[in-house]
Amino acid sequence: MATVVPVNRESIERARNRQNNLTKPPGSLGRLEELSVRLAAIQGTEKPRLGPGAVVVATADHGVTAEGVSAFPAEVTPQMVLNFLADGAAINQIARACGAEVYVLDVGVNGPEFPAHERLLSARVRPGTGNIAREPAMTPAEAMAALQAGENAARRAISEGAEILAAGDMGIGNTTAAAALTAALLGLEARAVTGRGTGVTDEVYSHKVGVVERALERARGELGDLSTADPLEVAAQLGGLEILAAAGVFLAGAAAGLPVVSDGFPVTAGALLASRLEPNLKDYLFAGHRSQEPGHARQLEALGLEPVLDLGLRLGEGTGAVLAFPILRAAAEVLAGMATFAEAGVSEG
Amino acid sequence: MATVVPVNRESIERARNRQNNLTKPPGSLGRLEELSVRLAAIQGTEKPRLGPGAVVVATADHGVTAEGVSAFPAEVTPQMVLNFLADGAAINQIARACGAEVYVLDVGVNGPEFPAHERLLSARVRPGTGNIAREPAMTPAEAMAALQAGENAARRAISEGAEILAAGDMGIGNTTAAAALTAALLGLEARAVTGRGTGVTDEVYSHKVGVVERALERARGELGDLSTADPLEVAAQLGGLEILAAAGVFLAGAAAGLPVVSDGFPVTAGALLASRLEPNLKDYLFAGHRSQEPGHARQLEALGLEPVLDLGLRLGEGTGAVLAFPILRAAAEVLAGMATFAEAGVSEG
Repeated sequence: MATVVPVNRESIERARNRQNNLTKPPGSLGRLEELSVRLAAIQGTEKPRLGPGAVVVATADHGVTAEGVSAFPAEVTPQMVLNFLADGAAINQIARACGAEVYVLDVGVNGPEFPAHERLLSARVRPGTGNIAREPAMTPAEAMAALQAGENAARRAISEGAEILAAGDMGIGNTTAAAALTAALLGLEARAVTGRGTGVTDEVYSHKVGVVERALERARGELGDLSTADPLEVAAQLGGLEILAAAGVFLAGAAAGLPVVSDGFPVTAGALLASRLEPNLKDYLFAGHRSQEPGHARQLEALGLEPVLDLGLRLGEGTGAVLAFPILRAAAEVLAGMATFAEAGVSEG
Repeated sequence: MATVVPVNRESIERARNRQNNLTKPPGSLGRLEELSVRLAAIQGTEKPRLGPGAVVVATADHGVTAEGVSAFPAEVTPQMVLNFLADGAAINQIARACGAEVYVLDVGVNGPEFPAHERLLSARVRPGTGNIAREPAMTPAEAMAALQAGENAARRAISEGAEILAAGDMGIGNTTAAAALTAALLGLEARAVTGRGTGVTDEVYSHKVGVVERALERARGELGDLSTADPLEVAAQLGGLEILAAAGVFLAGAAAGLPVVSDGFPVTAGALLASRLEPNLKDYLFAGHRSQEPGHARQLEALGLEPVLDLGLRLGEGTGAVLAFPILRAAAEVLAGMATFAEAGVSEG
């Protein structure tokens, strides 16, 4: 697993000092100021700049769909992989508008292998997870392999020029796995973190909460207190494969010194897991948007993150992360390119 | 004054229908969906696209600074014009990051003429407004000239390729003028719309509220009920020149069939004025961000707009408008480029 070094505290101070001398009333750029200082610290410069970005959309299936927890059938996962590769999904359009390449990582889709494609990374660990209500999602070795598949995808994106990375997700049933994993890592009740995913009815929602409860109880039987157990073993119990891959994307991105951006509920479960495995990750991690899933707020709270955007999204795929790229680029540009009062000969208030 | 035609209601329905058949759970793209439908209707197509943008930063001085209402001296207005032209201000960096050209419009700066510059539009109507606490900001003819200067600036930006337009502002003292104009047009008390601008103390703030009250009382003496008087005459009483120019930018942009994006408190006072002069403007108008100025919320409410971003900005210059360009572009791309369920062969839930 990649090692993440904390950012230099002195560069934070230097960047903040420069930010406070730029030609504008102090604080008038609001959240851009704090974002710019974090980006400067990550890059170890007072003049940060963010070039092209990339999003790794990690895709996998979930055995728990057998319990009837999703509004969509499991066959949609491989169908959407083909849609990503054909440039037809939301993330493709958003990535084009926001300066990002899309990489699709098959870390565990259930179905025939996909035809080769330039932007498809095939690293199927297993054809979907076990049904977490009844059995472990995967073995700890498979969990590590899924995480490493995410790390490798991040390294590929970086080698092809990415200077900022997001993780995205696609996997029918994955808000159930994300709810179980989030409840486990944060020591919360199932109901506090279970939402309606792609849009289930009241009846299916109650059933979904029960499924998450059963998964948690089963995992507790294996590992004891889940909030203090080995996080990788907890993730192996509750899944999913794409959540582990997202964790790997964040870890490898941060290890390479890049800012990494979290997305909605399943991907932020990956961020939470990654930050348990490597607490220094938090220095590099940004929250792209505030999801409509109720458990997302609990994840962000635990990670100490305030999202950049609040647009009512609940799609995943990395959409809310990539939408934040231009805002982060603008924050970097402000600090890198603005004149100070002294440089511009502007009178201070 | 430019004439704005309402958008075609049928294209709204067609765009909404397409949006509802794209390969994602219905509603899962949150606010992007509504934004995309509005952009489609403006462009009269189901597949909207937004290319390069531009921001016209309208600059002018304010006689009311004699009352001591600002934390910065009036000399900062011309200094900042030079900073804009030297690419040293916040808007320059944000525009570069977000795909926009910056045009600087001198519609009434007080001081020597600026040296010629490719992106400087010189259309000084008068060297700053009168002190609105004691006298009219300008004559109605000057108000119309300032508005037309904004229209001409918008036409120049459009002729050079802009497909989406923002207005920005720079003018020491302009939150006082914006507060007076907003209170007048909406029939509100001075205190409800007066904020701290670039950051004044409690004492100066109370004084500023008093100055706005005096300006409103004086203007009521001239025109009677300000919320029903001729809006252009109200603007001539209360100013400022850059607020009128911003109104002109919005009107000419919308008349040319472009989406136009409002910024903070002074510019949104211009949008409010423009929508009083031409109610069809609302079909084309977007709110870029939510400003920290308290009167901004009242303006947005009156215009029926929900801002795209909420980043705690209170700078002006068009910064919060231009930051929203990539989000609007992404919204357009989603509707233009995504596959429908039928096209992609993805199963519906």
